[in-house]
Amino acid sequence: MVLNLVADLYPADVALLLRRLPDAEAGRLFRWLPPEMGADVLAEMEDAVRAALLDDLRPDTLIDLIDALDTDDAADVLADLPDRVALEVLPDLEDAADLTELLEYGEETAGGIMAREYVALAPDQTLQEATEAVRRSAADVDDVYTAYVVDEAGTLLGTLSLKQLLLSAGAVKVRDVMDADFISVAPRVDQEEVGRVVQRYDLVSVPVVNDTGRMMGRITIDDVVDVIRDEAEEDMQLMSGLTGEEETVDSAVQVSRGRLPWLIVGLVGSGLSGTVIGAFEATLQQAVVLATFIPVVTAMGGNAAVQSAAIAVQGLGAGELWLSDAFKRIGKEMLVALLNGIVVAGLLCGTVALLGMGDVTMLVATLSLTMLSVSLVATTNGALIPFLLTWLGVDPASAMGPFVTTLNDIMGLAIYFLIATALYL
Amino acid sequence: MVLNLVADLYPADVALLLRRLPDAEAGRLFRWLPPEMGADVLAEMEDAVRAALLDDLRPDTLIDLIDALDTDDAADVLADLPDRVALEVLPDLEDAADLTELLEYGEETAGGIMAREYVALAPDQTLQEATEAVRRSAADVDDVYTAYVVDEAGTLLGTLSLKQLLLSAGAVKVRDVMDADFISVAPRVDQEEVGRVVQRYDLVSVPVVNDTGRMMGRITIDDVVDVIRDEAEEDMQLMSGLTGEEETVDSAVQVSRGRLPWLIVGLVGSGLSGTVIGAFEATLQQAVVLATFIPVVTAMGGNAAVQSAAIAVQGLGAGELWLSDAFKRIGKEMLVALLNGIVVAGLLCGTVALLGMGDVTMLVATLSLTMLSVSLVATTNGALIPFLLTWLGVDPASAMGPFVTTLNDIMGLAIYFLIATALYL
Ligand SMILES: [Mg+2]
Ligand SMILES: [Mg+2]
Ligand SMILES: [Mg+2]
Ligand SMILES: [Mg+2]
Ligand SMILES: [Mg+2]
Ligand SMILES: [Mg+2]
Ligand SMILES: [Mg+2]
Ligand SMILES: [Mg+2]
Ligand SMILES: [Mg+2]
Ligand SMILES: [Mg+2]
Ligand SMILES: [Mg+2]
Ligand SMILES: [Mg+2]
Ligand SMILES: [Mg+2]
Repeated sequence: MVLNLVADLYPADVALLLRRLPDAEAGRLFRWLPPEMGADVLAEMEDAVRAALLDDLRPDTLIDLIDALDTDDAADVLADLPDRVALEVLPDLEDAADLTELLEYGEETAGGIMAREYVALAPDQTLQEATEAVRRSAADVDDVYTAYVVDEAGTLLGTLSLKQLLLSAGAVKVRDVMDADFISVAPRVDQEEVGRVVQRYDLVSVPVVNDTGRMMGRITIDDVVDVIRDEAEEDMQLMSGLTGEEETVDSAVQVSRGRLPWLIVGLVGSGLSGTVIGAFEATLQQAVVLATFIPVVTAMGGNAAVQSAAIAVQGLGAGELWLSDAFKRIGKEMLVALLNGIVVAGLLCGTVALLGMGDVTMLVATLSLTMLSVSLVATTNGALIPFLLTWLGVDPASAMGPFVTTLNDIMGLAIYFLIATALYL
Repeated sequence: MVLNLVADLYPADVALLLRRLPDAEAGRLFRWLPPEMGADVLAEMEDAVRAALLDDLRPDTLIDLIDALDTDDAADVLADLPDRVALEVLPDLEDAADLTELLEYGEETAGGIMAREYVALAPDQTLQEATEAVRRSAADVDDVYTAYVVDEAGTLLGTLSLKQLLLSAGAVKVRDVMDADFISVAPRVDQEEVGRVVQRYDLVSVPVVNDTGRMMGRITIDDVVDVIRDEAEEDMQLMSGLTGEEETVDSAVQVSRGRLPWLIVGLVGSGLSGTVIGAFEATLQQAVVLATFIPVVTAMGGNAAVQSAAIAVQGLGAGELWLSDAFKRIGKEMLVALLNGIVVAGLLCGTVALLGMGDVTMLVATLSLTMLSVSLVATTNGALIPFLLTWLGVDPASAMGPFVTTLNDIMGLAIYFLIATALYL
């Protein structure tokens, strides 16, 4: 009865349902599913949920499930199994050889997300023969939009869309209608680059070709869409002081462990900020009112830096900004910083004057100089650091987490108290 | 010569090239392109760049270009033209009626991103007739992976993949092989929801169907990929205190205007934080060492809040968390906050004791109570606000910008000085 209900759902919906059920019930429901459906559901699951589900399956059940998967998903499942279990089932799998090869690629590379299933055509086949070839592979290859034309050595010569195949005369040769000017990616390329290529050239699948021109596999758009979303989520997490891998299903201890590192970095960084303040205790004793503006200075620095960093991270990620743009970019950011610094300093000093806080002349002089300098320094830092990190090969999104804000707190406070000390003491 | 070089490039690459050229040169190069290529390039451009390029074209050139576009892109171009120009060219366009209808939908809805071009089949056609129908529409409809089966009233009855069409016998009726269990979206649905549906069900195109079941148009995966990336960029910008629409090509004044609002919100918020500090001047006079820990308290609050907010925003965005999960979510976050609060407070107090800062006993008591409370309050705020905003219909990503951090600065400092005052005075 429950099974009937579930059998009518799409695999992705069953996966979502299993994700939200308690572990024991999820396991029970999953074992009820016929292997084909079970495999489709597995392919739609996130690693953490899937691992828990597969934990207590018998090896032969596991083998049936993995055999029903496409090789890209099968490789992912194998990679997530405990090594002992993976080594036990691998030799008995249908696609053992293909999978062994796929497992050699990094999980987040083109090779790591490609599947070995695709429709291969020979250049001298007629389109009628080609249609037959598509028919023969139909059971094995699910989503076919494009067939790949390869020679005997396995070199990719061209691509042929199903539309072309459907609309051309049956006697024509594959070679004469194929598109020889195709786009491909190399197996070691980062999946983020695959996402960029697919988005830029509006592809629905992309062949993976090694440096000798051999066709290694294909990546389909549904997996690229997942990559694009995963990378965006990772960026958002890195920006927020997370490790980039927290899942809503993780346990409190897992979550805590993932969040502590950046909290501790924040603690150390803010401790340094505090040390800066402590170093100017004499100045503070002289005018305790200066303490009131500590949050104002750090907010201006933090916000201005994150704003300019976000644009740089985004431009670099989308391939719209290049490393060589750094200086032009900084120049423009400094102009923006100047404009915004003047407006914010004006508003702040106007308020101070209106409220008649402390020694107004001294305070206005200190604050206007500080806000302008902080705006310039923080904005420049924010724009520069992503370029620097990209150049160092580090994901620039991690620049925008606690790191940039902490750095700017320290610099902002140092600027503030140096100016205040010079004026007050 | 230059034209020959450019004619060999993909439209997306020409678009990138034009984006990076100075306006005058970009205009010159663009006018050199043949209309078909020009149209393909336009479709790949971002609104701001495109608007600048079309600015000084003559109406008949504009009409040729727009006629060469698919209706989804044509509607976008029209929407970006000055009203006067749009009204002038619209009546002379090939697809004037379709475009008028498309322009009625919000730009970021399914209706706003769909195209009117698709392959329509009748249920009683044979597959041989269907193949003819695909052939006839081939010139007008570019990317065909699926044909749509509609009755005389225009009601969508099912979908037929090209693979199915290619592999089934020619005498079979469309009705007998079509997939009647298709996924569609309503025209008023937000584009973000379209992205979620396409990702969840691994679609390459999705039909837009109104509430009477009528087929209105189709959305292709390349445009959905752009939506997913645009929405991710918007989220990143909202998180970073930007308006969500800053482009790397914007002028310094445009950029400054877009960034100032959140800088001013930050100023006001941090002014309030400052007021909290000011209100406790007596406590500060008593123990100036307390000022040293202001950045530590605000960093803990800000970082903890942004961490828990990021996960809530992400879960809500991906459809993995629902509004009804709020309480369960908060419970778990409080547990995490407790764990992290204990660790961070322990590290901080250990350092204070080691360095023998100020009146160690008092300081350790104040700081440990403060860090624990701030961790709890900030984490809870961070996790709660995205649910609240979603419930209010506001994009939850905007919770994570200066808003959440500022709110937590104020609350954190209030907690800190209340505890300190109670202990010290
Ligand atoms: Mg999938
Ligand atoms: Mg893999
Ligand atoms: Mg694209
Ligand atoms: Mg796949
Ligand atoms: Mg990555
Ligand atoms: Mg990244
Ligand atoms: Mg496109
Ligand atoms: Mg047209
Ligand atoms: Mg539109
Ligand atoms: Mg999917
Ligand atoms: Mg389109
Ligand atoms: Mg939106
Ligand atoms: Mg959004």
